[in-house]
Amino acid sequence: MRTCWINGAYVPEAEAAVPIFDRGLLFGDGVYEVAAVMQGRLLDADLHLVRLARSLREVGIADTVGAAQWLEVMQALVSRNGIVEGLVYLQVTRGVAERDFVFPQGATPTVFAYARPKRVSDDPNAAGVAVHVTPDLRWARRDIKSVSLLAQVLAKEAAKAHGCFEAMMHEDGVVTEGGSSNLWIVTDGAVQTRPLSSKLLAGITRDVVLQVAAEAGIPVRERAFTVEQARGAAECFLTSATNFVLPIVSIDGHPVGSGVAGPVTERLRAGYLARARALTAG
Amino acid sequence: MRTCWINGAYVPEAEAAVPIFDRGLLFGDGVYEVAAVMQGRLLDADLHLVRLARSLREVGIADTVGAAQWLEVMQALVSRNGIVEGLVYLQVTRGVAERDFVFPQGATPTVFAYARPKRVSDDPNAAGVAVHVTPDLRWARRDIKSVSLLAQVLAKEAAKAHGCFEAMMHEDGVVTEGGSSNLWIVTDGAVQTRPLSSKLLAGITRDVVLQVAAEAGIPVRERAFTVEQARGAAECFLTSATNFVLPIVSIDGHPVGSGVAGPVTERLRAGYLARARALTAG
Repeated sequence: MRTCWINGAYVPEAEAAVPIFDRGLLFGDGVYEVAAVMQGRLLDADLHLVRLARSLREVGIADTVGAAQWLEVMQALVSRNGIVEGLVYLQVTRGVAERDFVFPQGATPTVFAYARPKRVSDDPNAAGVAVHVTPDLRWARRDIKSVSLLAQVLAKEAAKAHGCFEAMMHEDGVVTEGGSSNLWIVTDGAVQTRPLSSKLLAGITRDVVLQVAAEAGIPVRERAFTVEQARGAAECFLTSATNFVLPIVSIDGHPVGSGVAGPVTERLRAGYLARARALTAG
Repeated sequence: MRTCWINGAYVPEAEAAVPIFDRGLLFGDGVYEVAAVMQGRLLDADLHLVRLARSLREVGIADTVGAAQWLEVMQALVSRNGIVEGLVYLQVTRGVAERDFVFPQGATPTVFAYARPKRVSDDPNAAGVAVHVTPDLRWARRDIKSVSLLAQVLAKEAAKAHGCFEAMMHEDGVVTEGGSSNLWIVTDGAVQTRPLSSKLLAGITRDVVLQVAAEAGIPVRERAFTVEQARGAAECFLTSATNFVLPIVSIDGHPVGSGVAGPVTERLRAGYLARARALTAG
């Protein structure tokens, strides 16, 4: 059985529970992060913890653990569970209190984390995935990585129902984000992704891929694009913390470009993997 | 200690817990209802259970309990906890599964409920409450009573920070809803509230108050109104399952009408209470 961590203690998975009065359960009142593991080590956990601290500030939850202890906990979960490739998930909620929308006085945030294996360096989806176009139903503060995720759950389930790996969410035809990823296109040899705002999450992988592209001399445009532009692009891909860079080879059944992973996407995935291997080397 | 109900069992509050892998906690992936209790009896629980069934259908969660058993559970919680006036809260989540956005195969929904006392017939707020105007940040499917409620939590906390009881949420100046209530104005002797759509919750109390108004011969308009119209209205009020009808006497510090509860609002509150007393009489 897995070992999880909750409120300061390492416990068997079966004992990791929260009271029904936890605000994470009653209100989706919490935030989270997911970091990848390669070669038994955390990838960019420091960057995820900076974003966690920001999410906590934005929703007014106290940061009772802090980056240094989170790093210890995340590394301990990797070791105790023997994760070589996989992920660590962590969550903070506003804590346990009699149900009332306003912030409770004196409640202590609930904190927990777990790890699990996942193939990240040789992801079977690296050959390319399909996406399904669906309206973006999310709230206005998508820059906060909150656990009020029902819109994303429904978008990704709709994608699955259409035989697709991911949702391509849009507002009035303008692509916002994937269900749990940032989306990109390649046109005229340049990569393009939406600029940061409250309309999308500031992806850690998004930011790293922007650097990888710049270092490889690939032109970068931070500009929104439409579903139509994605359909007509030479290449399309997604980025996320545990999918890294995945080619999008079809949009609602219509092939993107040649219908297979394109050369720019493959360069970026390879560049991302090389950096990840170097950062997690023993 | 309170007795709660979870997954078929009545348990002491301290034992009512869910695993950290519950999708209610990880994704806000669940729906809920709240019904008032008067004279030791449930008010309009049947209507709340019809709405629960609709919410479950809309998000694709199986209705494993059903209205008949929910009624038994709700009544048992009222009795076991000796509630004379108060509320019963119930929630259904998509269940426990390894974290993945798409619906899990074979997971059983998590179901739980609790009761608590609250003054409803002689609510100390019946003299009138203050509201704070704030942008509506919610997702697009507000007709679903989901537990992904972080936008409402932040709206109601902002209201509290401004010394107000409730948020008056708006989009581009058009009033959508309160943080956890429907909003109304009275102009030229007629009551006005926004028509039903995916932009707001179909309040059970809203619907009953429409009937109470019609029976009292008060003209009713189902039409959106602006923050400016609310500021200039003769009266303004909110409706919710446990607040019934509450006068709104100020909007961001500016008095509404005469600054005290108005006659139409008082007639509607009295009419609502009379109906509630009759329905819950022994």
